[in-house]
Amino acid sequence: MPLLKPEMSAEVAAALAEGRPVVALESTIITHGMPYPANLETAIAVEDTIRANGAVPATIAVIGGKLHAGLDRDTLAALAADKSAVKASGRDLAAVMTRGGTAGTTVSATMRIAELAGIPVFATGGVGGVHRGAEESFDISADLTELGRTGTAVVCAGVKSILDIPKTLEFLETQRVPVIAYGTDAFPAFFTRDSGEKADHRLDSAEEIARAIVSHHALGSGTGLLIANPIPEEAALDPAFINATIADALAEAEERGVTRKDVTPFLLARINELSEGRSLKANIALVMNNAAFAAKIAVAIRALAPSVLASGR
Amino acid sequence: MPLLKPEMSAEVAAALAEGRPVVALESTIITHGMPYPANLETAIAVEDTIRANGAVPATIAVIGGKLHAGLDRDTLAALAADKSAVKASGRDLAAVMTRGGTAGTTVSATMRIAELAGIPVFATGGVGGVHRGAEESFDISADLTELGRTGTAVVCAGVKSILDIPKTLEFLETQRVPVIAYGTDAFPAFFTRDSGEKADHRLDSAEEIARAIVSHHALGSGTGLLIANPIPEEAALDPAFINATIADALAEAEERGVTRKDVTPFLLARINELSEGRSLKANIALVMNNAAFAAKIAVAIRALAPSVLASGR
Amino acid sequence: MPLLKPEMSAEVAAALAEGRPVVALESTIITHGMPYPANLETAIAVEDTIRANGAVPATIAVIGGKLHAGLDRDTLAALAADKSAVKASGRDLAAVMTRGGTAGTTVSATMRIAELAGIPVFATGGVGGVHRGAEESFDISADLTELGRTGTAVVCAGVKSILDIPKTLEFLETQRVPVIAYGTDAFPAFFTRDSGEKADHRLDSAEEIARAIVSHHALGSGTGLLIANPIPEEAALDPAFINATIADALAEAEERGVTRKDVTPFLLARINELSEGRSLKANIALVMNNAAFAAKIAVAIRALAPSVLASGR
Ligand SMILES: [Mn+2]
Ligand SMILES: [Mn+2]
Ligand SMILES: [Mn+2]
Repeated sequence: MPLLKPEMSAEVAAALAEGRPVVALESTIITHGMPYPANLETAIAVEDTIRANGAVPATIAVIGGKLHAGLDRDTLAALAADKSAVKASGRDLAAVMTRGGTAGTTVSATMRIAELAGIPVFATGGVGGVHRGAEESFDISADLTELGRTGTAVVCAGVKSILDIPKTLEFLETQRVPVIAYGTDAFPAFFTRDSGEKADHRLDSAEEIARAIVSHHALGSGTGLLIANPIPEEAALDPAFINATIADALAEAEERGVTRKDVTPFLLARINELSEGRSLKANIALVMNNAAFAAKIAVAIRALAPSVLASGR
Repeated sequence: MPLLKPEMSAEVAAALAEGRPVVALESTIITHGMPYPANLETAIAVEDTIRANGAVPATIAVIGGKLHAGLDRDTLAALAADKSAVKASGRDLAAVMTRGGTAGTTVSATMRIAELAGIPVFATGGVGGVHRGAEESFDISADLTELGRTGTAVVCAGVKSILDIPKTLEFLETQRVPVIAYGTDAFPAFFTRDSGEKADHRLDSAEEIARAIVSHHALGSGTGLLIANPIPEEAALDPAFINATIADALAEAEERGVTRKDVTPFLLARINELSEGRSLKANIALVMNNAAFAAKIAVAIRALAPSVLASGR
Repeated sequence: MPLLKPEMSAEVAAALAEGRPVVALESTIITHGMPYPANLETAIAVEDTIRANGAVPATIAVIGGKLHAGLDRDTLAALAADKSAVKASGRDLAAVMTRGGTAGTTVSATMRIAELAGIPVFATGGVGGVHRGAEESFDISADLTELGRTGTAVVCAGVKSILDIPKTLEFLETQRVPVIAYGTDAFPAFFTRDSGEKADHRLDSAEEIARAIVSHHALGSGTGLLIANPIPEEAALDPAFINATIADALAEAEERGVTRKDVTPFLLARINELSEGRSLKANIALVMNNAAFAAKIAVAIRALAPSVLASGR
């Protein structure tokens, strides 16, 4: 069966046709991550950061049942204001398409659509992971298994410590996904630069990471890569503060009987309240940072690919 | 290496060659699910239901070391009477073929052979799942991972509540498998219409489900779909009765020291005894219901595919 | 993206070009499994055993950032003496290549490179598995998931009982990997011939196993096969002795607070000390035994393939 080609903005279609660097972006941060109009302002700022670093942004979403890679300004504005938009992971896409619905795409859905569009680099805030208590609940994000099946390089600031980070790293190992930290030996924890866990590999430039991505694909394992880019020092939250806040929010969730799919949104909302908005500010800073770095990687891949491939034959 | 083409009955070969709708059927229900001759009578009735709904049945099995998709009446009768037939999951097929053996095929083996034959829709009773206690035993059916790797749409009545249904649904999410319920918001529990868990998506016609299947394949995730079709109201067992019976059977298994691979057959046999045959009757009713609905989906896919695909290009 | 072709020794390149049987070998046993020069002597003896049984050995490693399948004598000697060599699993390869590093390859990395080279049979000592305590730690070797994704037949002496063997077998079932024991009903436990668990299938000749491998690939499941070849009777350790030794070493690890990635190397070193070198001797004997048997399987595959494939069309 022939695969779908997503609808593309003129900017993205031209870049892909001409072999210029493109960076995919997810859209649940727009539809479910921030209030209007902060969501639209951030989305535009993130896209502009990618352009400023030499690549073309391809914001990915489902609009009226169609897959899109690259949204023109009017479509982006409409999505940011659309209260009917749902949140779709990769396995939700077919049902949303069947209903003709509009959806923000999670990491797994964005990876899938980026692959269909032919975009190998994707910037986001953080990826889903193994939930605390997953040894009993079996609650493990499909983002991790999509990384085990789809060859996209995902640039993120690590994994939020509301998740179980050691188990998430073990699961990524079992899924055969390379985890490469940029400029640090530590695996970062979204709001902070150090989760207390080590990253498997450290590389210190976009050019080296581009070479690792190209080499990895030439190995044929079929997995993506997780590129962990720590939040900028000046934007990072104090680890003691954020860990205490997360502990408080977890205790509160337990007390109030919040369970299953309600836990993560509850924790994120409480953390934002308890931090008086500092967590949202940190979130925006790290997304901007990831977008800029992903653009540099996409540029480096385009520069490198012919010689790397030649050496590999 | 070239892939195997299963031996086909004349009826199945003609239907596939002419692009007419075909529905795959598993055969452990014949070799291990029911006594002779009830197994043969049911198998014939299920096939006839598929024909009555406009599709061609392809009962799948291993006969004398060869894969078959579509059994003529004599072969079906011989399989139903063959006490030497083993039960083969997907990973058992090569060893059974090497020994020249005959086997009923589980969900995972049937999906694999249906894929080799080019049959995208498969009707069964229920699929395997995550076993109760799997957090300690790691006992998780390969049916779920085959759904994560093979693009067949499996029409079933959900998952038996002798399994751990919440963990099964979490595992299917991690495996990236769409779970779509037909005409209900609830995920069904085989003998009953509502497991207490919600299905991720509800669609209300065979035509919509056909569109979701075709759209899903065009996304290239490589997974199958689980189409949950609840047991007909009039055939459903009383939830209080069946849950108490399952609890009794579980307690008995524990008491008698039944462990590991012996637990499921023990539970099913006990449930049938304790229900005085009502569970077998319900089982037949739901398989007939799934066969009829799978035929309607297969018909709808053939009708839809050209236009859906056209819109996706 | 085109896949990499590993650098090949003249011997391996010629054998593959002429369709003669080849057996892949891993190299962490050289870089991390034994002291110099015992590691080099063993590597040469293993290669010679494969040649004596009619096949060509392809020792796999990463040398100066390049993938190799087949090392000439000088390169093998240099690798055996190279104290800078790291240990690379499949997901580490790209980072090691990017750094221009040298690495011994684990089972998962060796499978990946063997696949790129076109070598379907691989001999090793034992494969990684599910670690004891994995229900809490989620520590599960990528060897098992590589077996679930890459079509290599891995000939090994089972799984060391420092791992959780029942969970490892359940995980392999969920990964859809056939487990076939040679000449025994029991699944072997590396140092001993019987883990107490049954193997799913028993086949009694290299020729039958070759037929199972070829049939399995023709099913298109995409998984490898685990061929469990028990340690020769005369080399096996006494089960009571080795199990007590492992229990002692586990208790000692707990006492000293050895955790996570340090546990396995600690246990193996302690077991060797406590066994006064008998475990190393057993290890060499079983690797030689596996190399010889893998060569026989590779020879049998070359002999069988045309007729088996013909029957499968
Ligand atoms: Mn979840
Ligand atoms: Mn099982
Ligand atoms: Mn591990």
